[in-house]
Order: sequence, then C-alpha cells, then structure tokens
Amino acid sequence: MAEPRETGPSGRAQDGEFARIAAILAGLPPGEGVVVGPGDDAAVLRPREGRDIVATTDTFVEGRHFRRDLLTPIEAGVRLAAASLSDLAAMAAEPRWALLSLVAPASWSGADCESLERACARALFDEGAAVVGGNLSSGDGPLVASVTLLGDVERGRAWTRSGARPGDLLVVTGCPGSAAAFIAAALWGNPPSRARAPRELDARVVSPPCRVRFARALAASGGVHAAIDVSDGLAADLAHLCVAGGVGARVEEAALPVDPPLAAAVRAITGLAGQERGPLPAGEGALITRLQLGASDDYELLFALEPAQWEECARVAAQTGTPVARIGAVTDGDALVLASRGGGEGPLDAPGWDHFRDRG
Amino acid sequence: MAEPRETGPSGRAQDGEFARIAAILAGLPPGEGVVVGPGDDAAVLRPREGRDIVATTDTFVEGRHFRRDLLTPIEAGVRLAAASLSDLAAMAAEPRWALLSLVAPASWSGADCESLERACARALFDEGAAVVGGNLSSGDGPLVASVTLLGDVERGRAWTRSGARPGDLLVVTGCPGSAAAFIAAALWGNPPSRARAPRELDARVVSPPCRVRFARALAASGGVHAAIDVSDGLAADLAHLCVAGGVGARVEEAALPVDPPLAAAVRAITGLAGQERGPLPAGEGALITRLQLGASDDYELLFALEPAQWEECARVAAQTGTPVARIGAVTDGDALVLASRGGGEGPLDAPGWDHFRDRG
Repeated sequence: MAEPRETGPSGRAQDGEFARIAAILAGLPPGEGVVVGPGDDAAVLRPREGRDIVATTDTFVEGRHFRRDLLTPIEAGVRLAAASLSDLAAMAAEPRWALLSLVAPASWSGADCESLERACARALFDEGAAVVGGNLSSGDGPLVASVTLLGDVERGRAWTRSGARPGDLLVVTGCPGSAAAFIAAALWGNPPSRARAPRELDARVVSPPCRVRFARALAASGGVHAAIDVSDGLAADLAHLCVAGGVGARVEEAALPVDPPLAAAVRAITGLAGQERGPLPAGEGALITRLQLGASDDYELLFALEPAQWEECARVAAQTGTPVARIGAVTDGDALVLASRGGGEGPLDAPGWDHFRDRG
Repeated sequence: MAEPRETGPSGRAQDGEFARIAAILAGLPPGEGVVVGPGDDAAVLRPREGRDIVATTDTFVEGRHFRRDLLTPIEAGVRLAAASLSDLAAMAAEPRWALLSLVAPASWSGADCESLERACARALFDEGAAVVGGNLSSGDGPLVASVTLLGDVERGRAWTRSGARPGDLLVVTGCPGSAAAFIAAALWGNPPSRARAPRELDARVVSPPCRVRFARALAASGGVHAAIDVSDGLAADLAHLCVAGGVGARVEEAALPVDPPLAAAVRAITGLAGQERGPLPAGEGALITRLQLGASDDYELLFALEPAQWEECARVAAQTGTPVARIGAVTDGDALVLASRGGGEGPLDAPGWDHFRDRG
C-alpha cells in the first residue's frame, strides 16, 4: 500500500495526475463508442454488435526497449504505439480504445513524459484508437511506459498464429531487420549516434509504418491461415508461428527483402559508406541475413497464405502501399530450413528477443 | 527499439517468457468468453450482448505502492488485483478478463515474480476475471507490476463519479483509513514491522475484501447516483466525486466508521497498546480522523445514495457481508464541510495521494 504523503505548501494542483492526463489528451477528439472516457474509476466502452474484442498490452522500459540517447520522447511514444498497433494488425483487428500507463522517474521532466504520452496517444488516434484511461506513477529507476490496446474484429474472424498449412506461402511486409540495422549502425561508434544510420532507415524505424489497413483489407479477401507480427525477429517469430501450427518452414535466403535503406545501413556498418548504391558485395551477405533473421523489432507482419491468394495479396499490398515479399513456404514436419543463396541448406536459426533467457 | 541480444550457451528455454506465462496461469481454468487466450499476439474476447465493456489499468511500483519489507510477493499480487477489482466495483461492473504486465529487476528472483503474478491472477480469477494476456520484461530499478482489467455491465448502467444530488446520503463500505493505519503502525519503529499492526487490520489490508458482489447487487436495486472507490483517501475521493457532480458535501466526523481493528491500530500507534478495548480516549480523535480522511488506499466504495434506498442498501450490505456507514450528505454548492465531534464545523481537507504533486 502507498505510504501517506502530504502535499507541500505550494499545492501545485496543475502538476497533479488529473491535470497531466488532461494535457496528454488535449486536442484529441473523444473516440467512438466511448460511453465514459478518462477521469472516472474505469472507462465504459460500447462494443459493436457482431464483433469480438481484441486486447494486447505492451511495455517499453527505458534502456531496454529504447535508448534515450537514440530516440526522443516523442519517437519513443510513437514506437510504443506501433508495437501495440502491430499486435492488432497481426490479428486483423481494428484499433478502437487504449489505456496508457507511465512510471516516470525524476530523471524525466514532466514535459518529456507528456511528449511521450501525447505522441503515443496521437499515433494511436491516427489509427482509430482513442485513449480512454491510464495511470501515472512516479518511481525510481528507468521510465516504464505501457499501452493496453483494445480493438475489434468480425466475430470468429481474428487471425491467429496457428493454422498454417504445408504448401502455404510465407509472406512478410516491409523489410525485417531494419530496426536491428538501425541499432547496429548507431552503436557502431562511441558515442552512439543515429546519424550513422541512413536517413530513410531512420525514418522507418522511428516511425514504423502501420500494417492495420493492409491486414484489414487482406482479411476481407481471405486466404491468410496464420499471422504473427515481427517484433522478436523474423526467425524467432517464424518459429512461434510454426510451433503454433505444428508445421515446418523453408525460407529462401535470396528472397528475404533488402531495400535501399537496409542495404545502405549494411554498407554503413561495414565501413562501405559512400559507395554507390547497387547490389551488395557478396561478403555482406552473412551480415545482412543475420540482421534480417535475427532479433529486430520491426512491427511488420509475417503470414502463411493460401498460394492461390498471392495475386490478391499483391493487389491489396499495392492498394495500401505495403511492400510484401514471398520468402518461402510452410512445410510438413517441424524443421525450419534456410535455403542459402549459394544453393546449400541449413537450419534457420537466429535468436529472438527473450527477456528472461539470460536470467538465473 | 530493443538492442539485439544473443542467448547464452545455456539456452535455458524453461526460463523464457512463454514458459513463465504458462507457469503463472498453471492450474487456472480458461475464462468464459475467451476465444483466443494467452500466447498469441493479442487475446480475442467475446462480449456479451447488451453489455458495455468496462476497462481500468493499475500499476504498482515497488517502494511506492508497496514496500517489500512489509508485503510478501504474494500479498503484493493480491493487493494489485484488489486495486483493479475495486475500480470495477465502483462502476458496478462484473470482472471478466485481465492482462498482467511485469517489469522485473534482477533483485527479484524468478520465483518471487511468479508468486506475485500467480497470486494476482488467482485473486482476479476468484472474482470472475481470467488472465488472457500480458507482458514480461526485465529492467533495472524497482519492480513494476500492472493489471489491465476488463469487465462488463448492463448497457448504460455503469455507475460513474458524476450524478450525486443534493440530499443524497454519503455511504462508505468498510473502514477507510485502515491501510494508512497499517502503514503508520508498521513504520512507527525501526526497522519497519507489520507485527506492530493489529492482526485483524493486517489481514484486511493485505487482502482487501472485494466489493464487486455488493456493488452488483446494489446496482440491481437502484438508488446509487454516483460512486467512486477509496484509493486516494476518503477526503480526496469525496472531493473527486463532488467536483464531478458539481455538488458539495457535509461529513459527520462522529459517523466515520471505526471498528475494533482500526481502533487497536490507533492505540498501537499512540503507545496505548495493551489497553483494553473500548471507546478511544478523546485525545485519539484527531489522529483517527486524520487516518480516516487522509491518504489511504483501502479499496472501499464511497457512493451517493437516494435516501429512500438506505434500507435496501443495508439489506444488500447484510446479505453480502459488507459493512456500510452513512457518513454524511451531499449538499448544494461546492463546499466540503466536516461537522466535528465537538459540534463545530470546518473545511474537510485532507490530502490524497497524488504522484506528481511534489515534483517540479
């Protein structure tokens, strides 16, 4: 239980929890289906008939999920929103409401905390989710920011991780590995600096594109048997999808998407900065594959698609401005195989991001 | 974004995030209306027809909302559940689903973290809410545990803070000030020890009674115009209720409930321990009023009741084993008045628990 604490003689009510919540939401219109919004003991929300509720929660810990020397408070807030929106995209759900929580240490000014929360609230709002409640605490230690995001989806139509079938195409959106490449480039020298990451990559990583509209449109056309968001890393998230479906996968190394910003980041990391754009020299292959498959929180989608639906998927992708790539296929059994550029085959094995693996 | 980190050669998969979530939920049956439970990108939940969704989020920060030298991990988990259940009781809502998040520092063993989360999940489950998702992170600093609790209520029937009418009775459940008295008794000497708090008070504070069933039964009989839970402290929460309703209040000091455990705590604090039970000496009055009105997270209910409904309220209270007390009345205007035992009147003014008041 909380220890009683008195208010100082200054009585700065404007610094109080209620005033701060109001400041975070200033300028944002109330959401749809909000019967009681922030400021009561709980929010009251009116679900739409014929829909299931989809709920996810994400937490960002300073120094762990973001570095303050690499991201501004606004950017951290935007990425936190992206993390939770990505979970809803992976369920083909529509974002509706959110609750934001912050544990703010003294090392963060009130203005910086507010910037983070406001940016998060705005990014959620832009995708259809209104902030309807939350929590503000002080605390020693790193800043901890959390979002619980609620959405909805046509009853019984949510995508899940399970359901992939042998023969399905494996499709990813965007360019997984981008977040890892950004971090690698930024940490390449001392002090860390994101100026070493290519500018287009920087823009994509600090403000990840939202895949909700793509997922909603693709869900309407059908053919997705299983989906997951790429937040641990492509190999780790593919492993989750295969375990959930009781299937294996074969990924073609040459089919993993590399766009110019990711290629430029690899050049920056390997000291090839300044060279003209073009195919990467062969020696860069190992590094780029490691970035593409390894731990990287890209907030892209990975899904198993009925092969006959590929053209429709490509149409939806074009319509929504979403890069998509077929990277392999679902297989019988449980093996995860990487077919390398050179023609050989080997186990697909790159560690994901598991917070407790290293703890005793 | 997360920095990529490799798994050590030990590869302790059993310590991984997924295994930990499974351990937390082991032994708890799946909840009703859960289409997709933990383990996917998000949970999928089926709302009941004709109901609104009620959502609240609460965060406990070690050293701030609980002291590790006073509460066991299990007790901290139970109190966290109580904090969120109390918010739903204040809306007359029925708990249904919950998401749990933990930021665990190295100073907490995996077993202690699991104890806290399991106790929280069990306490929520006992009141009808199934854990359907969550998040586990490591982090330096204090342990941070959060619950987002979702419930439902008959459409348009949620209680809110606003709506109190002049002439309404002000009613509280239980004995507000108990949590403050527990802390005061425990911190009375060095080192802090809850052994100085009376045993019955200890039991009530570490495992607060849940007011959901009382609230649900009372909502069915009608007459509650506004409600709030006592989590900041009685005076502060009454002020919130009055501001929301545009009304004032007059509280009778003599009507504030004091039961034997609270009276015993006051004796312990003032060095009267060992004296026989009975009315407190006059000199204790100021302290007890301060405990009753000041910052104290008791998870009790405060509500404005149509006077004609008092007998029905008392009947529901008796039926559900809920102590209730009429402590005053709602008034015109915006003054908060305390009518003292001695016969005088003065402003009702005791600070609540505002996390940001003290910060620059």
